[in-house]
Amino acid sequence: MSELRRDLASGRWVIVAAERADRPGSLIAGRQEKESREATPPHMENCPFCMGNETMTPPEVLALGRDSGLPDTPGWRIRVVPNKYPAVELQGEPGAGEGAEGGIFRAMTGYGVHEVLVETPEHNRHPGALEQQQMELVVESIYRRCLALSREPNLQYIQVYRNHGREAGASIEHPHSQLIALPFVPPLIKGELQHSRDYYEESGGCPYCHTLAEELAYGGRMVTENRFFSAYIPYVARLPFETWIIPNQHQSSFLELNGGQLPALASIMGTVLGRLAEVLRDPPYNLYLHGAPLRSPGLPYYHWHLVIVPRLATGAGFEMGSGVYINITVPEESARYLREKGEIAVGI
Amino acid sequence: MSELRRDLASGRWVIVAAERADRPGSLIAGRQEKESREATPPHMENCPFCMGNETMTPPEVLALGRDSGLPDTPGWRIRVVPNKYPAVELQGEPGAGEGAEGGIFRAMTGYGVHEVLVETPEHNRHPGALEQQQMELVVESIYRRCLALSREPNLQYIQVYRNHGREAGASIEHPHSQLIALPFVPPLIKGELQHSRDYYEESGGCPYCHTLAEELAYGGRMVTENRFFSAYIPYVARLPFETWIIPNQHQSSFLELNGGQLPALASIMGTVLGRLAEVLRDPPYNLYLHGAPLRSPGLPYYHWHLVIVPRLATGAGFEMGSGVYINITVPEESARYLREKGEIAVGI
Repeated sequence: MSELRRDLASGRWVIVAAERADRPGSLIAGRQEKESREATPPHMENCPFCMGNETMTPPEVLALGRDSGLPDTPGWRIRVVPNKYPAVELQGEPGAGEGAEGGIFRAMTGYGVHEVLVETPEHNRHPGALEQQQMELVVESIYRRCLALSREPNLQYIQVYRNHGREAGASIEHPHSQLIALPFVPPLIKGELQHSRDYYEESGGCPYCHTLAEELAYGGRMVTENRFFSAYIPYVARLPFETWIIPNQHQSSFLELNGGQLPALASIMGTVLGRLAEVLRDPPYNLYLHGAPLRSPGLPYYHWHLVIVPRLATGAGFEMGSGVYINITVPEESARYLREKGEIAVGI
Repeated sequence: MSELRRDLASGRWVIVAAERADRPGSLIAGRQEKESREATPPHMENCPFCMGNETMTPPEVLALGRDSGLPDTPGWRIRVVPNKYPAVELQGEPGAGEGAEGGIFRAMTGYGVHEVLVETPEHNRHPGALEQQQMELVVESIYRRCLALSREPNLQYIQVYRNHGREAGASIEHPHSQLIALPFVPPLIKGELQHSRDYYEESGGCPYCHTLAEELAYGGRMVTENRFFSAYIPYVARLPFETWIIPNQHQSSFLELNGGQLPALASIMGTVLGRLAEVLRDPPYNLYLHGAPLRSPGLPYYHWHLVIVPRLATGAGFEMGSGVYINITVPEESARYLREKGEIAVGI
C-alpha cells in the first residue's frame, strides 16, 4: 500500500509508491558505469571553461586563486563569467515594456543577471571529487557573487543552481554552476515563504528547524552531518535519492553564512556529492539553493537549504499536471542505502 | 534580448530566450526519425494491453466496442483496467493513518484510483494516427470513467494524463492513457483556481475566455480550430511547442462536455497530435487534462483544457528550483511552424 505524504513547509504532496519499483538498488542496476572521466583529458582545446581558453568567454567578473597577472589569463582556480547565451541581461530598466503587447498579455524585457561559475580548471575533475580547499573556493565564489548582486536594487532573487550530466540539462561537461538573478521572487519561493509563515504563525517556530530537529531525533533519513550542517533525504522527497543540506542553526538567507560555517558547508557538499556519485554510479543530477529573497534577512520562518535531485526517474504527465510527485523509492530505505554505501543492508 | 512573460490565469513566469537555441527547426534537426512503428507488429505476445492478453491485467472496469462475449475477452475497441502497479488504491478510508508518524510529519494511506485506458487494440498504432471513430471512443471512455468516479464521495480530483515515448515516462509502448483520482485537490490546480478567481473578481470575466478571445483575434499563436474547440501555443508556453486545446464556450469541468462537442474534441486532438508527430518527428510528449474539482460544476472563473508538452528540451536546476521556465523557442514562431507543417516559413 502506498502512502500520501504532505510537507508542512511547502504544502507539497508526494505519493510514496515503492511497489512500483523494487528496492533502491534496482534503480541503478541497469545503469552502466559512466565512461571513466579519466578517459577525458584534464584540458580540452575547444572548452570555453578550460585554462588558457579565457578569451572564449565574456570577460570574467570574479577570479579566485590568480596571484598575479591580468584578468582573463590563466592561473585562476575559480572563474566566474557572464553566460555567453544569457537567459536575462542587466539592460535598461526592469519592468520596461511591461504590458507592451497589450490586452491581458503581460511581458517585460528579460532584465537580470546570468553567470557561470567555473569550479575547477580541470575539465575531467568530478564535482564529487573536488579537494576540500577547492570546494571552499566554490562556496566562496557563490557567496561573493550573491553578495555583489544583492547590492543591485532592482534584483529581488538569485537562483543558484548546478546541472550535472546531459540528462540533467548540462550542455558543457566542464564542472560549473550557474546563477540567474531576477527582478521578482520566483513562484516556488513565494509558495514556500507563504506556507512557512503560516506554519510559524500557528506554531511559533520555523518549520525547517522543527523538521531538522525531528530528523535528527529519528535518524532514519539522515545521510551525514557535521557541526554546522545536516544532510538528509526528506520525508517528502519527490524523486529517488533527493537529498537536502541545511544549516543546523537558523539562517534565512545564504548571505548569513559565516566564515566558521564555510569549511563545514564545503565538507558536507563534498561528502554528499561524492557519496551519490559512488553509490548511484555518477547519476545526472540537479542542485539548487533556496533562501530568503534579497534584502529580507533574518526571517524567523524561512531557512536556506541546498537541494540535490538525482535524475534516475522521470516526472511525467501526472506530475506535470498535478504538481504531486510519485516517488518509487522509500526515503528511509534510500537514506540507509546511502549511509551504508550501497552495500546490502542487514538489520537496522 | 529575452522577454519575461507572465500568465494571469496561473501566475506563472516564463523567460522566452530564443537566442539560446536557433529557429524552431533546429530543435529537431538532431532528432533521428524514430524507428518506424510499422516495424513493430500490431500484436505482441507479451504486451498486457494487446488483444488476447486480457488475463495479463486486473479485470476490466470498462470496455467499448465488444458487442458480445464476456468481460476480459477479445473483441473490444477500448479497454479500461486498474493499473497493475497502482500509485493509489481505493482501500480503507481516506485520511486513515493521518499523522501516523507523529510530530510534524503528516501522512495518510494512499487512497485513490489509478486506471489505464487502452486506446486501441493495435500495439503499433500511433496515437496521432487514430481514426476519428476510434478517437471518439477514447474521449468517450475518459468521460465515462470520470463520470463514474465522480460519484465516489471521497474523491476530489481526477488527473487524466498520457505519457508518449520512453523519454516522457512511458514504460509500455502500446497506446494508453491513465487517470489517477485523489482525495484532495492537487496544488497546481489549487493555484490555478486561486489565480483565476482573483482575476475574475477584478475583471468580471474568466481569464481563459479572455485569453482565448485575444488569441483568436491575434491569430499568430493559433495552431488549428473548429466550431467547438481551439488549439494554440500559449503566450506563456513553458517548453518548446507546448500546445493547449480548449473549448470555445465556457465550461469549467470536463464533465460538462456534451454530445455535440465530443466528435469535435476527438477531431482536434487527432489533428494536433498528428501534426506534432509529423512536424516534430514523433516527439516524446506528456498530455494532461486540467478542469474543476469534482462536484464543483459551473465555476465562472475556471475553464477546462488539455495541455500537450513535447519533451524536446529539459527543465533543469533553474526550473526545478524557481518554478520559472526558460523557453528557448518563441511561441509565435513555433505556432507558425506547426501551421505551415514545418516547411520553411516565408512572409506571414
